[in-house]
Amino acid sequence: MRAIGLAVSTVIFALRPHPATQRPALSIPLVRRTREPYAGRWALPGGWVDPDESLAASAGRTLVETTGVRPSYLEQLYTFGAPDRSPTGRVVSVVYWALVRPEQIGERTDAAFDSVNVRWFVADDIPHLAFDHDRIVEYSLWRLRTKVEYTAIAQGLLGETFTLSELRQVHEAVLDRELDPANFRRQAEASGAVVPTGERLTGGRHRPPRLYRFDTSAALADNGPLGADDPFPPSGEEQ
Amino acid sequence: MRAIGLAVSTVIFALRPHPATQRPALSIPLVRRTREPYAGRWALPGGWVDPDESLAASAGRTLVETTGVRPSYLEQLYTFGAPDRSPTGRVVSVVYWALVRPEQIGERTDAAFDSVNVRWFVADDIPHLAFDHDRIVEYSLWRLRTKVEYTAIAQGLLGETFTLSELRQVHEAVLDRELDPANFRRQAEASGAVVPTGERLTGGRHRPPRLYRFDTSAALADNGPLGADDPFPPSGEEQ
Repeated sequence: MRAIGLAVSTVIFALRPHPATQRPALSIPLVRRTREPYAGRWALPGGWVDPDESLAASAGRTLVETTGVRPSYLEQLYTFGAPDRSPTGRVVSVVYWALVRPEQIGERTDAAFDSVNVRWFVADDIPHLAFDHDRIVEYSLWRLRTKVEYTAIAQGLLGETFTLSELRQVHEAVLDRELDPANFRRQAEASGAVVPTGERLTGGRHRPPRLYRFDTSAALADNGPLGADDPFPPSGEEQ
Repeated sequence: MRAIGLAVSTVIFALRPHPATQRPALSIPLVRRTREPYAGRWALPGGWVDPDESLAASAGRTLVETTGVRPSYLEQLYTFGAPDRSPTGRVVSVVYWALVRPEQIGERTDAAFDSVNVRWFVADDIPHLAFDHDRIVEYSLWRLRTKVEYTAIAQGLLGETFTLSELRQVHEAVLDRELDPANFRRQAEASGAVVPTGERLTGGRHRPPRLYRFDTSAALADNGPLGADDPFPPSGEEQ
């Protein structure tokens, strides 16, 4: 056994109103470091892996401590282990990424976020982070953007039912560019991934838009024989 | 810092003649354990990460120690860290997978393989392995099979130039099923990933088959901003 510290960090994604435009924007919560190294700098939420804790459970604990919510999706991203990535000793970080649905970010979370040391940032406006976390965020954005194009991963950022406009807004927020509404509607309907619920959005409009849900046979993402990561496993049942 | 052991294991893939049919078969080298736990059982090559060594360099060292060759491709697969995966203490294993080209497995390697404790196994006929290595091999096969369908990863198992029959044999060996030669040829030519070299296979045949190479603009696989893993990095230049 070698003296290498083992940590977990998690990139948490949710859609939150952009502070300037109020449109849904891909957002990430960060934690301000209160001690050296990098005291005062923002960093990804994380911490040491407990000896009796699985890696995904460690990421799940991190999530709860930071956002107070259970994620709708959790996946291992990559393990970062350059010998010089921490100035105070060798630390290898197993990094996860998580999606949180809007209804999971309630008042409870806003209360937790009164702390000046935890704050949501818009993904394309992240400050220069501690350690190699800039690189980790960049890679996690690439993975999310790649996955949103060929999987049902958007499910992890939406409520159970949604209009096609809302689904398009998720794709636009993730990809950070506008999509043609008619094209998007046609492709979404042709994909078979989303199905109409038969209901319409309630409200005062003359012809309110249809509500959709994801086809229940569509997994958020296909990780093959490993399946999905469970951040809250029954004790001792984890890879 | 916690007392968690950090190890690296590598799943190494190459095409080798199947012992029964002599056709190219996807093969994996395994190491017989000479000490407890699991003494006498086969396991993936690997070892402890040195404190001054990057994770990919540790995987590269493992590769050289086991097969004596430099891999044509190396990628981090997944980090396995269940609390009970080793009976003698907590061990977290960062697992890589590697591709080795046939010309890289020469006499030198065969000599190294005189040892009764290192042996190539056909991928679909692997014995029950030590630790959770059965699961790791299963997942690595899934990743390789998924990638061969939508990337130029087969490049990592082939020589620099090849006939379309040889390329099809790689796909057949990886996917473990026969492919229709005419369909495969049409799809390969239409993909733009392979280009004719203008040469033909030398030999006594009346009309020897054309030789192809991969389009040099085609990366083996797209890992976005992380790029490819370098198992032999200049000191201190690694993630």
